[in-house]
Amino acid sequence: MPDIETRKVIIIGSGPAAHTAAIYAGRAELSPLLFEGFMAGGVAAGGQLTTTTEIENFPGFPEPIGGPDLMVKMREQSIRYGTEVKTETVTSVSLSSRPFTVTSDSGDFKTGALIIATGATAKRLGMKGEQEYWQKGISACAVCDGALPVFRNKPLVVIGGGDTACEEASYLSKFGSTVTLLVRRNVLRASQSMQNRVQSNGKIHILWETEALEALGEQFLTGVRVIDKKSNKEKTIEASGLFYAIGHTPNTEFLAGQLKTDPDGYLITQPNSTKTEIPGVFACGDVRDKVFRQAVTAAGTGCMAALEAERFLASLE
Amino acid sequence: MPDIETRKVIIIGSGPAAHTAAIYAGRAELSPLLFEGFMAGGVAAGGQLTTTTEIENFPGFPEPIGGPDLMVKMREQSIRYGTEVKTETVTSVSLSSRPFTVTSDSGDFKTGALIIATGATAKRLGMKGEQEYWQKGISACAVCDGALPVFRNKPLVVIGGGDTACEEASYLSKFGSTVTLLVRRNVLRASQSMQNRVQSNGKIHILWETEALEALGEQFLTGVRVIDKKSNKEKTIEASGLFYAIGHTPNTEFLAGQLKTDPDGYLITQPNSTKTEIPGVFACGDVRDKVFRQAVTAAGTGCMAALEAERFLASLE
Repeated sequence: MPDIETRKVIIIGSGPAAHTAAIYAGRAELSPLLFEGFMAGGVAAGGQLTTTTEIENFPGFPEPIGGPDLMVKMREQSIRYGTEVKTETVTSVSLSSRPFTVTSDSGDFKTGALIIATGATAKRLGMKGEQEYWQKGISACAVCDGALPVFRNKPLVVIGGGDTACEEASYLSKFGSTVTLLVRRNVLRASQSMQNRVQSNGKIHILWETEALEALGEQFLTGVRVIDKKSNKEKTIEASGLFYAIGHTPNTEFLAGQLKTDPDGYLITQPNSTKTEIPGVFACGDVRDKVFRQAVTAAGTGCMAALEAERFLASLE
Repeated sequence: MPDIETRKVIIIGSGPAAHTAAIYAGRAELSPLLFEGFMAGGVAAGGQLTTTTEIENFPGFPEPIGGPDLMVKMREQSIRYGTEVKTETVTSVSLSSRPFTVTSDSGDFKTGALIIATGATAKRLGMKGEQEYWQKGISACAVCDGALPVFRNKPLVVIGGGDTACEEASYLSKFGSTVTLLVRRNVLRASQSMQNRVQSNGKIHILWETEALEALGEQFLTGVRVIDKKSNKEKTIEASGLFYAIGHTPNTEFLAGQLKTDPDGYLITQPNSTKTEIPGVFACGDVRDKVFRQAVTAAGTGCMAALEAERFLASLE
């Protein structure tokens, strides 16, 4: 059996957290190996930004930039500073002893430090028209997309009944002509203060016990067909925007339970740090953040992970 | 006395944290007012990046970008999304009741939420030649600048005796031909493990009880004149890079002790948050970070501050 080469740092992921970690690790002469995956988490390499249209809020780009364009730039920058990129999905890791083992389709790799930046995937309903109008009116991030011109003074729909759904409905009421909140049950799961905020907002209209059945449109979304479960009657609601607020699934399956998660499956890191409970294993980006979930916050924690990995490796020398 | 207009959000600062907060607050329709200051903290509006040369590690820019250029872009982006920028320095604030009062040279302003992003200023020695070669060989950030081509395989000097100085000397030994550490006392203040790392590194040479007197050079730095306090003899050390690791001063004077700080003067925020102990007051960027201090980490926390301010204001409605 041939010896397996041991790398200093392996990074798993392909979004802003992964590439910022790679840029910093590369500049620190750690020759990082980055697994960008092959349709890992159901999205192309580049992460969730590849499914967005224009990005207006990544600092440094006064003109809107396309999500895939931004990720091409970050990937180029990673490679420029010494990152080796493999377009393979990591299927498993072994964190029981150092160096850690990372297994992909092409075999095993050893590493002194591991940076996990695999992100989270927005949950979908799987309804008719969903795939067709995803990012053509359907979005999983109101903060990212709500302010786009295409949603201004237009009827908007939010799906969900928790804090995030209420917060996003409230946020979107600044932009849309009306916001319809589709709630599957006859109560909101959101906190009382959040419920009060939504219910006292004249622009927000709640449809109780109502489920979305189909996204309708032509080139872009124009409406949503819904069913009222009380009467079993269907109707179509006019909508230029449909915002899913039914949660995300952090991409941690390959870890097979070797790292602690919170009840929603997000990796747990130390406060103001990317350190997990295993020394030498760091987590950054949306896989450990269910609060902010922005490209620039992910990038910030990617930088932290690389600096913490560098300091960890230096402490072993 | 005329009524003072109450703003939703005031942001104090002009670096990546301040402008990322402004971009997010602007897009959230909060019409932020940003005080960029007039030579506040001793640097031009734009913060510490305005004193740097090329930036290679801000994600999204595969080609190096000038520090001032990057800040011009962020400022343009803030304004594009609705930020009003005032080139005035905030002299004091009153946080005892809401709305908070912010006082600048031109008068008083009221605000529902306050975002503090005033940064930190690298301590300087005030020695001869320092001003002349600042960012022409002298740097206060090894992680930012160490990997630049101008320092590769060149003799480098670090000033300081704490953990940061040892860490930066160790980091710079990857790039420079040699690293000389100038220590004012006859011991290091750094942790034992950090001392071991430095003392076992064949590229690092420590000069004990030695102080820098003058930065020498022509167009760029070429050397440092130092004095050995034991013998009182002066000598010149060849140096293409001189890295200050003698600490930073967080810019919090205008707060007059109204917010808690750690022993080094950095504002204290809640874990993984920018919330200070006063509801409605948020701190982001280097004024609350003495560990990472990078443009992209500052930007990440600026985004967090704006989202937390937006949620705070919405909770009052």
